[in-house]
Amino acid sequence: MAGNTFGTLFKVTTFGESHGEALGGIIDGCPAGIELDLEAIRTEMQRRKPGQSAIVTQRKEEDEVQFLSGIFEGKTTGTPIGFVIQNTNQKSHDYSHIKDTYRPSHADYVYEKKYGIRDYRGGGRSSARETVSRVVAGAVAKQVISDVKITAFVSSVGEIFIDKPYQDLDFSKIESNPVRCPDEKSAERMEAYIKEIKKQGDTVGGTITCVIQNVPVGLGEPVFDKLHADLGKAMLSINAVKGFEYGSGFCGAKMKGSEHNDSFNPDGTTKTNLSGGIQGGISNGMDIYFRVAFKPVATLLQKQDVLTNTGEIIEQQGRGRHDPCVVPRAVPIVEAMAALVITDHFLYNK
Amino acid sequence: MAGNTFGTLFKVTTFGESHGEALGGIIDGCPAGIELDLEAIRTEMQRRKPGQSAIVTQRKEEDEVQFLSGIFEGKTTGTPIGFVIQNTNQKSHDYSHIKDTYRPSHADYVYEKKYGIRDYRGGGRSSARETVSRVVAGAVAKQVISDVKITAFVSSVGEIFIDKPYQDLDFSKIESNPVRCPDEKSAERMEAYIKEIKKQGDTVGGTITCVIQNVPVGLGEPVFDKLHADLGKAMLSINAVKGFEYGSGFCGAKMKGSEHNDSFNPDGTTKTNLSGGIQGGISNGMDIYFRVAFKPVATLLQKQDVLTNTGEIIEQQGRGRHDPCVVPRAVPIVEAMAALVITDHFLYNK
Amino acid sequence: MAGNTFGTLFKVTTFGESHGEALGGIIDGCPAGIELDLEAIRTEMQRRKPGQSAIVTQRKEEDEVQFLSGIFEGKTTGTPIGFVIQNTNQKSHDYSHIKDTYRPSHADYVYEKKYGIRDYRGGGRSSARETVSRVVAGAVAKQVISDVKITAFVSSVGEIFIDKPYQDLDFSKIESNPVRCPDEKSAERMEAYIKEIKKQGDTVGGTITCVIQNVPVGLGEPVFDKLHADLGKAMLSINAVKGFEYGSGFCGAKMKGSEHNDSFNPDGTTKTNLSGGIQGGISNGMDIYFRVAFKPVATLLQKQDVLTNTGEIIEQQGRGRHDPCVVPRAVPIVEAMAALVITDHFLYNK
Amino acid sequence: MAGNTFGTLFKVTTFGESHGEALGGIIDGCPAGIELDLEAIRTEMQRRKPGQSAIVTQRKEEDEVQFLSGIFEGKTTGTPIGFVIQNTNQKSHDYSHIKDTYRPSHADYVYEKKYGIRDYRGGGRSSARETVSRVVAGAVAKQVISDVKITAFVSSVGEIFIDKPYQDLDFSKIESNPVRCPDEKSAERMEAYIKEIKKQGDTVGGTITCVIQNVPVGLGEPVFDKLHADLGKAMLSINAVKGFEYGSGFCGAKMKGSEHNDSFNPDGTTKTNLSGGIQGGISNGMDIYFRVAFKPVATLLQKQDVLTNTGEIIEQQGRGRHDPCVVPRAVPIVEAMAALVITDHFLYNK
Repeated sequence: MAGNTFGTLFKVTTFGESHGEALGGIIDGCPAGIELDLEAIRTEMQRRKPGQSAIVTQRKEEDEVQFLSGIFEGKTTGTPIGFVIQNTNQKSHDYSHIKDTYRPSHADYVYEKKYGIRDYRGGGRSSARETVSRVVAGAVAKQVISDVKITAFVSSVGEIFIDKPYQDLDFSKIESNPVRCPDEKSAERMEAYIKEIKKQGDTVGGTITCVIQNVPVGLGEPVFDKLHADLGKAMLSINAVKGFEYGSGFCGAKMKGSEHNDSFNPDGTTKTNLSGGIQGGISNGMDIYFRVAFKPVATLLQKQDVLTNTGEIIEQQGRGRHDPCVVPRAVPIVEAMAALVITDHFLYNK
Repeated sequence: MAGNTFGTLFKVTTFGESHGEALGGIIDGCPAGIELDLEAIRTEMQRRKPGQSAIVTQRKEEDEVQFLSGIFEGKTTGTPIGFVIQNTNQKSHDYSHIKDTYRPSHADYVYEKKYGIRDYRGGGRSSARETVSRVVAGAVAKQVISDVKITAFVSSVGEIFIDKPYQDLDFSKIESNPVRCPDEKSAERMEAYIKEIKKQGDTVGGTITCVIQNVPVGLGEPVFDKLHADLGKAMLSINAVKGFEYGSGFCGAKMKGSEHNDSFNPDGTTKTNLSGGIQGGISNGMDIYFRVAFKPVATLLQKQDVLTNTGEIIEQQGRGRHDPCVVPRAVPIVEAMAALVITDHFLYNK
Repeated sequence: MAGNTFGTLFKVTTFGESHGEALGGIIDGCPAGIELDLEAIRTEMQRRKPGQSAIVTQRKEEDEVQFLSGIFEGKTTGTPIGFVIQNTNQKSHDYSHIKDTYRPSHADYVYEKKYGIRDYRGGGRSSARETVSRVVAGAVAKQVISDVKITAFVSSVGEIFIDKPYQDLDFSKIESNPVRCPDEKSAERMEAYIKEIKKQGDTVGGTITCVIQNVPVGLGEPVFDKLHADLGKAMLSINAVKGFEYGSGFCGAKMKGSEHNDSFNPDGTTKTNLSGGIQGGISNGMDIYFRVAFKPVATLLQKQDVLTNTGEIIEQQGRGRHDPCVVPRAVPIVEAMAALVITDHFLYNK
Repeated sequence: MAGNTFGTLFKVTTFGESHGEALGGIIDGCPAGIELDLEAIRTEMQRRKPGQSAIVTQRKEEDEVQFLSGIFEGKTTGTPIGFVIQNTNQKSHDYSHIKDTYRPSHADYVYEKKYGIRDYRGGGRSSARETVSRVVAGAVAKQVISDVKITAFVSSVGEIFIDKPYQDLDFSKIESNPVRCPDEKSAERMEAYIKEIKKQGDTVGGTITCVIQNVPVGLGEPVFDKLHADLGKAMLSINAVKGFEYGSGFCGAKMKGSEHNDSFNPDGTTKTNLSGGIQGGISNGMDIYFRVAFKPVATLLQKQDVLTNTGEIIEQQGRGRHDPCVVPRAVPIVEAMAALVITDHFLYNK
């Protein structure tokens, strides 16, 4: 418990609230001697950052990471890597409107009930701002498993979805549009839709698909720490995630075994890959792919009923800046969490 | 790693292969003083057992559990509960047909590659037989959290699904049919379909829905050990599971925030429950519900291409007994894993 | 917590009480492909077994271990190794004299207070009988790190001690006498003293020295999981242990730095080894050695005052068989726990 | 592994090197609603700080702790507490004399061999500077278990020791002298001796005794996580520690059972307390006390032979400031680690 640590051998512990002094974390178990590409880490942080396009929140977060330990002359030393991201933009706002109220489908109410106290200046620890530390740790992890290629992209927004298998997509297009959707036509439609939603002060959900390529055979520890079970937990731990499926996923539940089984090639690869690169919880060398469902962000700029701490229901106007659709910014977070899982299993099986 | 332990405070470790001497496990952290209802444990095991109806495998497994420690004069003592289930029916068969071949979409190949050695007399550790230990542990867990009600049922088989919300179902009907589907009409259709599939020597997938009622507010440890993240991992660790969604799930990803948010009642309950009983990773007192996707079992009684360990593809006739549809027997396993997760979090927050 | 698991990568979980059905455990994380020498395991169990000489308890424990999983055709498969040791000799005795009383310096009282229930038929889980599972697991571990040599021996009994450094001792003599003391003269004196103590119905403490040779440089994980910290915890977890020191130990606390520092040889070895083979928590390739203090067994055959559960102090005559001096039988237990620690660290650093 | 985390429920992870940017840590699992006494934390840090008296190192370390999260309006919120201590005084020194050499009985050599890289600007992660994070975490822990009283003091320096049981000492005298020895006569002798040692450019070891009072009955998790086993590991993880004994300790190994057993009083307390407040690994409500042996610091201001990374032995003059005797400054560290252990077990058993 004490649920702020992820991983066993590549062990990441994070801290920080949306309106506190700073966020950060400790990466313990990072192998020594890795020449860290700090620019690559910064790039990942930029991808997560608010304000990068018209369709995401316009909040300003500078998001400069400062490494405090574990690196010497540009290389990891094998000792824990402490890092901090200052909250530079947390001015003294007026929080009176949220201090005594619980917003619907936010964590305000359960935090208050669980802890008896709540940092009411925003989402606190339950804010998606927390994920900045995940992105830093994931960006380091990616450099530990540099042979593995992890690619996430937006595969649907609301009812709009890419109707092609990932193999038919050009991953180099992902960063060419603000939605992070490699299918250009879908991307345009999604962008237009998100803008419309934004105008309404509303939000919309979506899905992210992630493909992990070049994973060696043998990662995953049955029977409980199966590779996809750890990937699933990692994804479900991200704010707003409601579902996870890998390989054939929920569609697979409709199929017959004679359709679903992946026939072997003589070299051990398979002709189809409905298994999603994992058999019995262990990577089989084929592409690992999975899909993650995000609900619409609960913070609206419309009027909504809220609960007060004296047990009244009152109508409240949403304020400030919000993310009309969280999935474009969640793409690097999905990749980061995938990197943490693969790295942890990789180190165990090296 | 060393992935055969589940849980932190209510910690279950299991062992055993399908064709070994015995299976079993150790439950560590079980509170003292619980008067164990052994009959209830036996009932759960019966629900998982092969041969209980015409639509499941006709293999014989006696499945008598023997408790070796941790219980004195009928009560738990707080010391670890060791238990064993003998493999009474593992005669010396002829395994030559599977010894040197890897069946498609089975774990044969990855076990061989990962460990360099494989118990070829069946699925070994990757066999679903392993879940018998989960059911025993889960049945004990259920008695620790006796106020919590955990109910799983089959919600779809192939393309046949229940088209009602769970609130409209009569859970008392679940055990009244061999499919474990509370909707009688759907149950009949499912049963007929499974029999047809069985005749073809084929298999079919399905989904299980699980509802957890009467969970206190406050279970779940952000940011990584969110309650639904642990539930998701638990479900994904079960053989053949390809997907997990809770609350609105993948449907939620298509919705707008204004539709998805659950408005409060003055008492803190909510009018709708698209959140699925969990906010920010913490139970909010509403029903927790989730859906689990199972792929069709890979063992067919048809001819299939298999890979030999010398790199040839040969056709092989499936033999023996098989489960045409795994979901009816998986119902108690889903409940067991849910019980383990809830108990672990319950003990942490008691 | 749920304190019956030891180790992270080579993870051992045990169960069982002195008067229960059986004891046993699960070894998870054992590498695959090890040809297990079952005879060597039996030998270790024999060394721990009661009744092996006139100076240890004459209780009969058959101590046959049965492996239930994780081994196929004589080799480990990488899956968890379940094992059981039946309690063959637990007849229905009359326990009325201990049912309602707490013996001094036993765990009766604290178990009752902690758990509210107690298996009163003997020490239960607090009995040294529990260590049989440790010896089995340790014997398997020894075969994982077969290049490492672990040697423990009795270095003192009461006031009688070996007054030579371990380098001057002939380890091949350890098993040549019932005390397991390699110095023959000391062994004779110790044996005579233990016999005398036994006649008095009394018990006596002693110390065990353990030397671990051929450990590679680099085992140990600062800053909390230093190699000697894990060795210390392992030893202190053995029944009756009151102290642990390694290298110069408590004597080192009296020395000056100029005396204590171990000068290097050009090859990185050191001229002296007051450090005890570990620097900064990491093995340096020199011999690791440590000393463990055992208090006298609390079970006497004399009269003693006991506390009743109604708060009375009454005199009670000790009965049955007892160990006048526990250290000879504890030698294989010390080795087993050392093997578990070294194996766990070895797997992490391989 | 990844050894920079201590504890399970009250979980502390630390980072930082002696000459890096900063040190710090994350406390995860701290209960919510504790009004933190920051002054008390500062006091503990002052006790550990260099330069506080003439007999400790005169290095300057400002040691201001900054809390970054987990505290709101002065109270803990149940979310992880991140904290940082800047290394304000790490100027660019000339490290050429230690860059290519391994000092005797330091961790230079093993770090280089283990990690293949080493922060040569000082002890790096192996420096005792690391303990500053332990003291911060321990000071928070003390406030979680505010009913428990933890008192450590110097019980010996070199051959000089307090020849009284702790019950005869006046703990209020501990902070009245720079040695932190409550026996004034011994304190004077110790202080004089340390000054003499300092003049010689040498160092000397010593022991610390720690007494933990008012611990509830029932803390400690057999069979591996016994309370004294966790205390032992905690102490052995502190730099320079060579031994740990509790209750009768190594003396107990010389005693007879009839002398060693602690007779009960009718209320469950015991007349003597050779057990040291723990039976069978579980606290029994009596005072817990233990003794910790520290070797002399390896950094001397004398000439010493060092090993170069090209395999030569050369003589080198020690430089800078050093701690002639580490034990006075280690007193708050021992208390901090004891607080972490007790808090972790306390939360588990609350």
